[in-house]
Amino acid sequence: MAAIKMHIKINVDLGEGYGNFKCGPDEELIPLIDHANVACGFHAGDPLIMHQTVLACKAHSIAVGAHPGLPDIQGFGRREIKMSPEELTAMTRYQIGALKAFLDAEGMQLHHVKPHGVLYGMMYRDREVCRAVYAAVPKGVPVFGLAGTLHEEVARELGLGFVAELYGDVKYNADGTLVIDRKKKPWAPEESRKHIKAQVETGTVTAVSGEKVDLPLGEHEISLCCHSDSPGCVEIVKTARAVIDEFNAKNFG
Amino acid sequence: MAAIKMHIKINVDLGEGYGNFKCGPDEELIPLIDHANVACGFHAGDPLIMHQTVLACKAHSIAVGAHPGLPDIQGFGRREIKMSPEELTAMTRYQIGALKAFLDAEGMQLHHVKPHGVLYGMMYRDREVCRAVYAAVPKGVPVFGLAGTLHEEVARELGLGFVAELYGDVKYNADGTLVIDRKKKPWAPEESRKHIKAQVETGTVTAVSGEKVDLPLGEHEISLCCHSDSPGCVEIVKTARAVIDEFNAKNFG
Amino acid sequence: MAAIKMHIKINVDLGEGYGNFKCGPDEELIPLIDHANVACGFHAGDPLIMHQTVLACKAHSIAVGAHPGLPDIQGFGRREIKMSPEELTAMTRYQIGALKAFLDAEGMQLHHVKPHGVLYGMMYRDREVCRAVYAAVPKGVPVFGLAGTLHEEVARELGLGFVAELYGDVKYNADGTLVIDRKKKPWAPEESRKHIKAQVETGTVTAVSGEKVDLPLGEHEISLCCHSDSPGCVEIVKTARAVIDEFNAKNFG
Amino acid sequence: MAAIKMHIKINVDLGEGYGNFKCGPDEELIPLIDHANVACGFHAGDPLIMHQTVLACKAHSIAVGAHPGLPDIQGFGRREIKMSPEELTAMTRYQIGALKAFLDAEGMQLHHVKPHGVLYGMMYRDREVCRAVYAAVPKGVPVFGLAGTLHEEVARELGLGFVAELYGDVKYNADGTLVIDRKKKPWAPEESRKHIKAQVETGTVTAVSGEKVDLPLGEHEISLCCHSDSPGCVEIVKTARAVIDEFNAKNFG
Repeated sequence: MAAIKMHIKINVDLGEGYGNFKCGPDEELIPLIDHANVACGFHAGDPLIMHQTVLACKAHSIAVGAHPGLPDIQGFGRREIKMSPEELTAMTRYQIGALKAFLDAEGMQLHHVKPHGVLYGMMYRDREVCRAVYAAVPKGVPVFGLAGTLHEEVARELGLGFVAELYGDVKYNADGTLVIDRKKKPWAPEESRKHIKAQVETGTVTAVSGEKVDLPLGEHEISLCCHSDSPGCVEIVKTARAVIDEFNAKNFG
Repeated sequence: MAAIKMHIKINVDLGEGYGNFKCGPDEELIPLIDHANVACGFHAGDPLIMHQTVLACKAHSIAVGAHPGLPDIQGFGRREIKMSPEELTAMTRYQIGALKAFLDAEGMQLHHVKPHGVLYGMMYRDREVCRAVYAAVPKGVPVFGLAGTLHEEVARELGLGFVAELYGDVKYNADGTLVIDRKKKPWAPEESRKHIKAQVETGTVTAVSGEKVDLPLGEHEISLCCHSDSPGCVEIVKTARAVIDEFNAKNFG
Repeated sequence: MAAIKMHIKINVDLGEGYGNFKCGPDEELIPLIDHANVACGFHAGDPLIMHQTVLACKAHSIAVGAHPGLPDIQGFGRREIKMSPEELTAMTRYQIGALKAFLDAEGMQLHHVKPHGVLYGMMYRDREVCRAVYAAVPKGVPVFGLAGTLHEEVARELGLGFVAELYGDVKYNADGTLVIDRKKKPWAPEESRKHIKAQVETGTVTAVSGEKVDLPLGEHEISLCCHSDSPGCVEIVKTARAVIDEFNAKNFG
Repeated sequence: MAAIKMHIKINVDLGEGYGNFKCGPDEELIPLIDHANVACGFHAGDPLIMHQTVLACKAHSIAVGAHPGLPDIQGFGRREIKMSPEELTAMTRYQIGALKAFLDAEGMQLHHVKPHGVLYGMMYRDREVCRAVYAAVPKGVPVFGLAGTLHEEVARELGLGFVAELYGDVKYNADGTLVIDRKKKPWAPEESRKHIKAQVETGTVTAVSGEKVDLPLGEHEISLCCHSDSPGCVEIVKTARAVIDEFNAKNFG
């Protein structure tokens, strides 16, 4: 019996190149996913890439969310920067607005907001940072995050919608938090299928330490996150698509 | 008899600092003007400054427009950069969207768009550049420019509203174009009053070469531009305010 | 009897503008000082400003040191960024080399290295950061810092020369560390004279809490630091110059 | 009979990644070449990449030159920016100095300077730009360029050494200038071998229009340039290595 009571979707970060620099096989991933988190020019992405990414998402009817990051292209938004709450709110608002302009031009809605990299991580650990970033999210737009964390708590506090994430290509600790590897390790195909299947079909996951962990998904909508810079990401996303399509068909077909 | 048939307004570029760096006495100018052109982070301005500038404009009920520039803080948007039309449209759209996010958050409208510095100048000389930049302006939002130039022509072609500018602190050539000094020179108070008064009351201006020049203002709305980095800018704007208030009172009072 | 056994010098940070943005009255300060800490383009300064600042220092026979900072013009090098030791060494080496090119072109020596802002502060608190930054200093070039801290300790460990700093415009805590105000407060002229005189003539200072604090200057060369962005900085530096000239004349005249 | 009277060498641009973004298979190319043009952080490269690239060159005893570019990571130094001569000299000096710091730390010499991208191209067309950039090259360090152009002329005028380049992966016009494709096209292996062989063995090349063109190499040292972002670059460089090794062995063996 499935613990999850809704259609599950898949989200991936897209548009994370910069100028001539490429990052991730966006063209191959777009047909496989439901939700795109589009970089907004601070940790990656630039106006032209944002425009092209929005067009590609439109062509495949993919819902587009903003993926704001710390202002650090060189560090790809993965070096912690101490900013004041006012700065965090302003820089997040700026990035969301920039992306929204490309969506407006195409008659598309801003579907969600999901912060990037170390900013996303800082929001798990620091309520003030989490509040400052989410204070910039327009009313009516949900945020994506790990259920049972400050992300969910602050979203509720601010009256924002919340979509609970599963992680297709990241392992979990026994306390339900994510294992962040400095350098992403490849997954064996069978291993990634098992990892995704367990989460989707039972709402649980086996932690790296071996315990079975219940994922506190509650009644939230669910989106499984895969990363376009994971080794073998296209294979992982194809696996996720197959597992999730089967789950959705069986339960809601 | 006045050639100008409408209320005249005053516009000034604001929010052109960067981080700790200041630029222009914004606080003194804001109470004196009607239209603010707010820098959007590419040639000057940053998210926090944009937020603060929008708040200050709101407090004084000033209409806020976007002031997009070339991506060059170090050159203050005054070094020509050759960008493709696609890049120009995308970077202008990005900047307008970023500013709009701060306006949305305050329940304010985007009043207009006025490009900055050498980008504005390139648009006088190159139709492709002009079209590419104005292609990013949302429908229903007017642009500000010198009447009788490519700015006006392209605005009409794209169906954008057009507000004709007078220049309170820039001299004119005999062909109606502006005299761009590498380094701005100070104005004697009486000289600036005469320069503004002639434009406002007769729709003409005396060129640097001595000829009287008719300004092709047509039926457009009018906004007189002053620069916050001109030497003695507060005095010039006060003079402009007095001359224009008198004109408006006499003709529309 | 003076505790200090050497000529005292004065150092100030210079060249901290960026493009059109100014920072500090460099022209007024240069004739008053002995040592310039020249910004290297990461937290402030740009190639043209570095060139002009080096020329101005040469014209006044001022010894020039590198003033490397975190890569953050918008934050003026005052927002903490977490970088790996390898990154810290590389970015410091890069900045020192860039400045050295302007000195080489003028036949001048690199006199010293003094890190800027929050980078300087992180080096007081974190030995790994301190080592990583000082690992980039060329052999034979001394560093400037507060005696009795990690700065001095790591300099000794790496075989670098050390110049002990006094602070003309910063107050001290009872433990000899500096009181960093978010926003710099103005000094009354008499107060700043007393603050400087005590340090110079007795090698002690009165902490904000009232205790008299011995400054652990040892046998180091001494340079008193003043900041070009302190309110009233020209007055403070003039006062420092007068006090120090008197001290030097009396003891070494 | 060979028109070329010296050992020929091979140069390639290296270190043109940025942060996490990769560019070119540097590790595969380094064992095949003689001269590296190392990006200096303005159009590509960052301090850590520069450090690592210098170390890799040292390990393979490759001579390292500076590869300064316009300040535009997003445009990869390929968007023209109008800068004053003073700015051009200063920004070139800055970049050369930054690279030199990494060489100094490894006890290596700066072997040459070769400007990048559109800056290199502007120097063919504009004597003032060419002079401004080369004014920043330290005495005794040669520059690399196409013989018979402003590059050679200005180098002579400024007393700089000059190394004449052949191009392994770029076609020529009938006037001896290079054909710059917006997007680099792949070479058939036999075609690239013929293109390189003709230049090396006869000092001539067949232009795209069919004429045989004499390359005005004079008595200069020669280095054949290949690009690490050409499609199939490793194969092209291997071909070049083989052709050149054969030429060098036959003539100077």
